[in-house]
Amino acid sequence: MKVAAVSDIFESAAQKCAADYGIPKIAKDPLELINDPEIDAVAICSSTDTHADLIIAAARAGKQIFCEKPIALGLDRIDAALDAVGKAGVKLQIGFNRRFDSNYRRVHDLVRDKAIGDLHILRITSRDPSPPPIAYVKVSGGIFLDMMIHDFDMARYIAGCEVEEVYTVGAVRVDPEIGKAGDIDTAVVTLKFTDGVIGTIDNSRRAVYGYDQRVEAFGSLGMAESANRRPNEVRLSGGADVREDLPLNFFVERYTESYVTELKEFVECVIGNRPTPVTGHDGRMPVAIGYAAKRSLDEHRPVAVSEIK
Amino acid sequence: MKVAAVSDIFESAAQKCAADYGIPKIAKDPLELINDPEIDAVAICSSTDTHADLIIAAARAGKQIFCEKPIALGLDRIDAALDAVGKAGVKLQIGFNRRFDSNYRRVHDLVRDKAIGDLHILRITSRDPSPPPIAYVKVSGGIFLDMMIHDFDMARYIAGCEVEEVYTVGAVRVDPEIGKAGDIDTAVVTLKFTDGVIGTIDNSRRAVYGYDQRVEAFGSLGMAESANRRPNEVRLSGGADVREDLPLNFFVERYTESYVTELKEFVECVIGNRPTPVTGHDGRMPVAIGYAAKRSLDEHRPVAVSEIK
Amino acid sequence: MKVAAVSDIFESAAQKCAADYGIPKIAKDPLELINDPEIDAVAICSSTDTHADLIIAAARAGKQIFCEKPIALGLDRIDAALDAVGKAGVKLQIGFNRRFDSNYRRVHDLVRDKAIGDLHILRITSRDPSPPPIAYVKVSGGIFLDMMIHDFDMARYIAGCEVEEVYTVGAVRVDPEIGKAGDIDTAVVTLKFTDGVIGTIDNSRRAVYGYDQRVEAFGSLGMAESANRRPNEVRLSGGADVREDLPLNFFVERYTESYVTELKEFVECVIGNRPTPVTGHDGRMPVAIGYAAKRSLDEHRPVAVSEIK
Amino acid sequence: MKVAAVSDIFESAAQKCAADYGIPKIAKDPLELINDPEIDAVAICSSTDTHADLIIAAARAGKQIFCEKPIALGLDRIDAALDAVGKAGVKLQIGFNRRFDSNYRRVHDLVRDKAIGDLHILRITSRDPSPPPIAYVKVSGGIFLDMMIHDFDMARYIAGCEVEEVYTVGAVRVDPEIGKAGDIDTAVVTLKFTDGVIGTIDNSRRAVYGYDQRVEAFGSLGMAESANRRPNEVRLSGGADVREDLPLNFFVERYTESYVTELKEFVECVIGNRPTPVTGHDGRMPVAIGYAAKRSLDEHRPVAVSEIK
Repeated sequence: MKVAAVSDIFESAAQKCAADYGIPKIAKDPLELINDPEIDAVAICSSTDTHADLIIAAARAGKQIFCEKPIALGLDRIDAALDAVGKAGVKLQIGFNRRFDSNYRRVHDLVRDKAIGDLHILRITSRDPSPPPIAYVKVSGGIFLDMMIHDFDMARYIAGCEVEEVYTVGAVRVDPEIGKAGDIDTAVVTLKFTDGVIGTIDNSRRAVYGYDQRVEAFGSLGMAESANRRPNEVRLSGGADVREDLPLNFFVERYTESYVTELKEFVECVIGNRPTPVTGHDGRMPVAIGYAAKRSLDEHRPVAVSEIK
Repeated sequence: MKVAAVSDIFESAAQKCAADYGIPKIAKDPLELINDPEIDAVAICSSTDTHADLIIAAARAGKQIFCEKPIALGLDRIDAALDAVGKAGVKLQIGFNRRFDSNYRRVHDLVRDKAIGDLHILRITSRDPSPPPIAYVKVSGGIFLDMMIHDFDMARYIAGCEVEEVYTVGAVRVDPEIGKAGDIDTAVVTLKFTDGVIGTIDNSRRAVYGYDQRVEAFGSLGMAESANRRPNEVRLSGGADVREDLPLNFFVERYTESYVTELKEFVECVIGNRPTPVTGHDGRMPVAIGYAAKRSLDEHRPVAVSEIK
Repeated sequence: MKVAAVSDIFESAAQKCAADYGIPKIAKDPLELINDPEIDAVAICSSTDTHADLIIAAARAGKQIFCEKPIALGLDRIDAALDAVGKAGVKLQIGFNRRFDSNYRRVHDLVRDKAIGDLHILRITSRDPSPPPIAYVKVSGGIFLDMMIHDFDMARYIAGCEVEEVYTVGAVRVDPEIGKAGDIDTAVVTLKFTDGVIGTIDNSRRAVYGYDQRVEAFGSLGMAESANRRPNEVRLSGGADVREDLPLNFFVERYTESYVTELKEFVECVIGNRPTPVTGHDGRMPVAIGYAAKRSLDEHRPVAVSEIK
Repeated sequence: MKVAAVSDIFESAAQKCAADYGIPKIAKDPLELINDPEIDAVAICSSTDTHADLIIAAARAGKQIFCEKPIALGLDRIDAALDAVGKAGVKLQIGFNRRFDSNYRRVHDLVRDKAIGDLHILRITSRDPSPPPIAYVKVSGGIFLDMMIHDFDMARYIAGCEVEEVYTVGAVRVDPEIGKAGDIDTAVVTLKFTDGVIGTIDNSRRAVYGYDQRVEAFGSLGMAESANRRPNEVRLSGGADVREDLPLNFFVERYTESYVTELKEFVECVIGNRPTPVTGHDGRMPVAIGYAAKRSLDEHRPVAVSEIK
């Protein structure tokens, strides 16, 4: 496996990347790369609004496809992309990298293997160290499609079944500017799953102690819980208290390993002709749940995911 | 301070108690004890349906009153009792013992002292090691008034403000017999507080690993979280994994200290003529929230606590 | 079982104790109490220099005996006391309370039950929150007989065999006054046991973070380690670090439970006519090891415990 | 900075390495590489008996030198190598990689910055998951020069001063074959440092629960302790106990990061013309301490490091 070519809307960025990693070719236009018969697979890491078109083009060109989440912000665009993939019979893997984190994977495996029996309650905590710039908030699609989408994926990944209904409580607590931009920064969503599991997800745009990424799965035979990862395992006992360093600060530190693993598994699936671990359907569902969560907040009532078309 | 007399519907139990603890007097009828002019204060620990009448009698007799929770299952009975207490000008303390647990108190103090800044999200986990007998479930008032009532109190205690609205998702996952008895055994309730805090409470009637009693308070400047207490601090590293003993199994072990402290503080408040740490209002509100939670489950919608009369 | 009488060199202390706990009789002279035919057992908690004589008197009077550690500072006095106990055929239990602490007991049981296989290395940490007054240091018998004696007992208790040889490194690091009083305040002792176990004990007269009492048992099949007990299980995550409260500060808080349990077990052994859990031999050996540790420090060489006569 | 050439006694290994990492040149003879004027620095990672000669050759050729530990097993060979380095005025860094581990570095920094005040007691635990093959044990130089040498370096690194005297207790507990090969597999060494710190190191060739690498620094103002690193932060609470996965199994997993960092820092020191973080003296001292520890075991007495010539 070799990286054959790189394309970037900013050509200098593509040039730097090619130089740094010894990539032999630069494509000005991504379609040039997508239509290159020497290339077997593409990774689409451009801005969200370009994902669906590039997926469709790549599928038609018979390429195996890795694409960053979300596929698109509109379900119709997602469906068009998935349709193209289906017709072309190519593989598609969506970049929900957290599925490849060793903590989440361990909890997933314990649930899948019934180490905690039947899952009854699933709790997901996901808090960022600080909010993105307001300019970004305005175009992000909102907390549900930008931030909690990862947690909707995690919920489906760990529960192993579909989300049926959601109920949202939200607030602007971190920064009034986020409210003025039409978004919220603090949210708790309750989920009902098809197999009777009850879930809660809580999000905050600012945890002063760093990136807070935890999950707890409670079931008939026990509980599996993951804690945050720390930069070291040192404890300092002093005259006033016992201290530890804060957890790893943000996704770059916390999820480095998972980014490497997700691409490695994509390549292995392509080479071994196996199904990808995060499918197009897995890319679609969190977007639908995100719309349901938003509607629940707006209409102050539980909303079935099936209401979202 | 001395225990002057004891009364029990089963006289032999009163006799044994008097013998074991050197209590000089047994009263067949609790009113005998309540109307004894030598007695300054009474602790009402009889069955729930007798609480309100005994509170009213004790208040009229000018006694200081400690009463186990709940005051009554009907808000009208509670209000009658509180009215009598108010008119008599006596003290009333309700037996929400968990407020006196060193873990919950520490989290409460940190929130009160703004060590975590403004509280944004409050999470309470409360799971029993095993469900009560079905016969008890039938007369218990249901999971919200029997079990989660403690958590509603905890929510108000830690948040330091009132619960405004609740939304309930519940299920029968532990034992179908509980469902046949008209109750549920697994519940997640989302709470909105008057000052904008969002809370979640999850209950299960059976955690195979023991009594699971934790709280997490997340705010603008940090997070305070309490873990379960363990019988020892030993870790065993073996060839397969690292093991610790299960947490303390149930309320008798976990909350021993809190039962002692709550009565000690009641006595100190009476002697020092200070307000009690858990008032009649504190006894009333969790019952109202419990009814709101039940209505939310039944009507599949968020319910304002103010709807409950 | 009832407490029949109390004696104290300060009569007012005996009077207060009798009043507080409803003890019917005060004896001016402890021999009065020891020779009272109505009394079955005595607990000797007076100053160390009186222990041996009182044990001898109690043994001759046929009493079952609980005695605080150490039996005496001289091995000849200890042997005289044990001899009297042996001839009288009465029970003797020495007050090594830490054997009854739930943490140490758990580690002991895991070692005894071979949960860690054969014990290879035993590490004991024992650090006080602050040194005793210099006046006390001068009469204490020194760090080995006053403080580390508990750890020598713990070493034998957990290893389940005898200490054969010790090597001591010590220093005055906490307070030069301790050095002027002829003692040290920081010590590390290496132990060789009869069955090949290697042990280390470290003591400091001052750990600013509180009472540090831990043990680690490493063996062919694993490791058991006990951590300090804390006043609560709360963690506070803030903008700078994650904090926990300091461990329980000193022996009164840390070992409350063990003091209750040791006396309870003594009473049960007397009533059930079973051997006591801490024998006279268990009281003698830590003193002998203490002398060996002191000689090792003085002579700068490993010292066999058998050298101590 | 670029890797210019690679040399290996097995030419095919050098070829594979060159191919995998795009290294342009292979040298059959390491001297060819050492004497190449295009090359600025060399990393000597060959077998121990070749280190000193290659250091001398590289120093004479004016190369900056990174060399794996130990420099040599003989102090005379070490001194010859250090002499050549000194005369040539080149940099030398010895491969004590653990100094670059984030846990040890954090403890080191806390000690250096006096966060625990003056260091009083230093405890180092270092246990391998399983012993090396007997064939290796026979040529390894023994546990003190092969395994504990890392801990002697760690002791000096954290204490920030020199080891003055050692006392060793050792045993064959893991495998009798190790004893037949003239070595021991379990050892506890007590260290006295020049500034009054007392240290203990314990080693075992087999910890069934994996690679056990911890340090505890106790001082006048507190304690810093590092725990083992784990593959994930998941806890599983079941009906019998609470479980965590074992720590990272061996040095490849545990110290990956440190191997990368040590070479990165070497390169930065060369480029920035700064002193290396692990000097030739740092490479020499652990070997001397190792010989002292061995002599202490053989002669059953404390041995001053200054006795080793």
